[in-house]
Amino acid sequence: MARYQVILAYDGTDFHGSQRQNGLRTVQGVVEKALRQLGWSNSSVLMAGRTDAGVHATGQVVAFDLVWNHTCEDLQHALNASLPRDVAVRQVDRTSEDFHPRFDAQSRTYQYRIICDPVRDPLKERYAWRVWPPLDLERLIEASQILQGTHDFASFGRAPKKGGTTIRSVSRVIWWQDEACSSFEIVANAYLYHMVRRLVNIQVEIGQGKRDVKEMETYLKKPGNRMPQGLAPPQGLVLSAISYPPNTAQLRNF
Amino acid sequence: MARYQVILAYDGTDFHGSQRQNGLRTVQGVVEKALRQLGWSNSSVLMAGRTDAGVHATGQVVAFDLVWNHTCEDLQHALNASLPRDVAVRQVDRTSEDFHPRFDAQSRTYQYRIICDPVRDPLKERYAWRVWPPLDLERLIEASQILQGTHDFASFGRAPKKGGTTIRSVSRVIWWQDEACSSFEIVANAYLYHMVRRLVNIQVEIGQGKRDVKEMETYLKKPGNRMPQGLAPPQGLVLSAISYPPNTAQLRNF
Repeated sequence: MARYQVILAYDGTDFHGSQRQNGLRTVQGVVEKALRQLGWSNSSVLMAGRTDAGVHATGQVVAFDLVWNHTCEDLQHALNASLPRDVAVRQVDRTSEDFHPRFDAQSRTYQYRIICDPVRDPLKERYAWRVWPPLDLERLIEASQILQGTHDFASFGRAPKKGGTTIRSVSRVIWWQDEACSSFEIVANAYLYHMVRRLVNIQVEIGQGKRDVKEMETYLKKPGNRMPQGLAPPQGLVLSAISYPPNTAQLRNF
Repeated sequence: MARYQVILAYDGTDFHGSQRQNGLRTVQGVVEKALRQLGWSNSSVLMAGRTDAGVHATGQVVAFDLVWNHTCEDLQHALNASLPRDVAVRQVDRTSEDFHPRFDAQSRTYQYRIICDPVRDPLKERYAWRVWPPLDLERLIEASQILQGTHDFASFGRAPKKGGTTIRSVSRVIWWQDEACSSFEIVANAYLYHMVRRLVNIQVEIGQGKRDVKEMETYLKKPGNRMPQGLAPPQGLVLSAISYPPNTAQLRNF
């Protein structure tokens, strides 16, 4: 018996989110089903982050204990052979027996993709939010800079646990544009419920000139008075990476 | 009554191809259904190109006759309101009453996207073909250059009509790579059945070093002796543009 950590990618469109829910198709549900085919019989895998229905991932981290007498690559192949098309194990490593993907995580990276187009675009809207009018990149960057650092984000979401702290530390925010889309990336130690989608929504309103950049500051300085309306839709969001301290054992083919 | 031409984009994943087939979900079927809601009652729209099941489009062209007393933009909005999520009208123009999107087309552009990855990648494989080992760009370019010009492509597909010519003129081929994928673009006056997917498949084999570039030349010089095995899968292919002579009337808000 050893503990393994797995990097998971999934297209969230056809999942009711990441966490197991009875009777619904969830990422945790299909991963546990694939593991059971390899003789795994514990009650539950450990997942680093919760993603909402429709949110995608390229860097979700899952850990579990398993008796496995072959290599990590073999385990990856075996899991991918039984996982459905919209989920894949991108990497497998053996890890320390007390590793916990959620509690040990130092930061989580999310990316959000936006296309600016007045007309529906079926080949892009599965993985992006379509908005119109277009976004002013300078205003987006100005708004995002305000988010840097440690703030009380109570205006942008509820704590996962009732009465829990709403203070979070954002270590990095970037907006960039190419021909096809505008993209936002945020790295923080942790997030409130719906926080990234609320932050994207208010920045889009700022980028479209519907709100003043100063409003972002007001929400951070006077947390919790009221929440700005609106939530960016899930299909633009991707949980792209979770980082761990360097001493977290990641010994490939241990 | 006037003739309209429409540029159509669709995600081909959930369609049994572009052409109407009784009892199956096709692009033509959903477009005709949307038109009927606007009072259209002809038997059939005219489509520029046939796309196989699973092949996508950003530049399919469709024409139809309709009594419509509002602007082309209004017609676009009305159609998009009743079309399903995986099809959209990207542009509407009024055109001449004898315009035929297939017979009047001068050239068709297809793009094919490939990702090189040994592991499944759920967020990319809806719109790309995943291959491994990776592709050598110089070999791809060398192989594609051979395709330029007018050749008998009988080794790469059947003519749409039995006994029809298998000679086609390729005016442009390019391969390019970025971080995420390798892309192929081809412009020709017309294509044989499955021709683009066969050409992509043999070039991938050349790019992976499994075949010699010279084989491409042999197939073009000795057409029809035998066809190379293998067809690139449909999900990497996009019908991206169809071009018409400059005198084809495209009078927006005629």
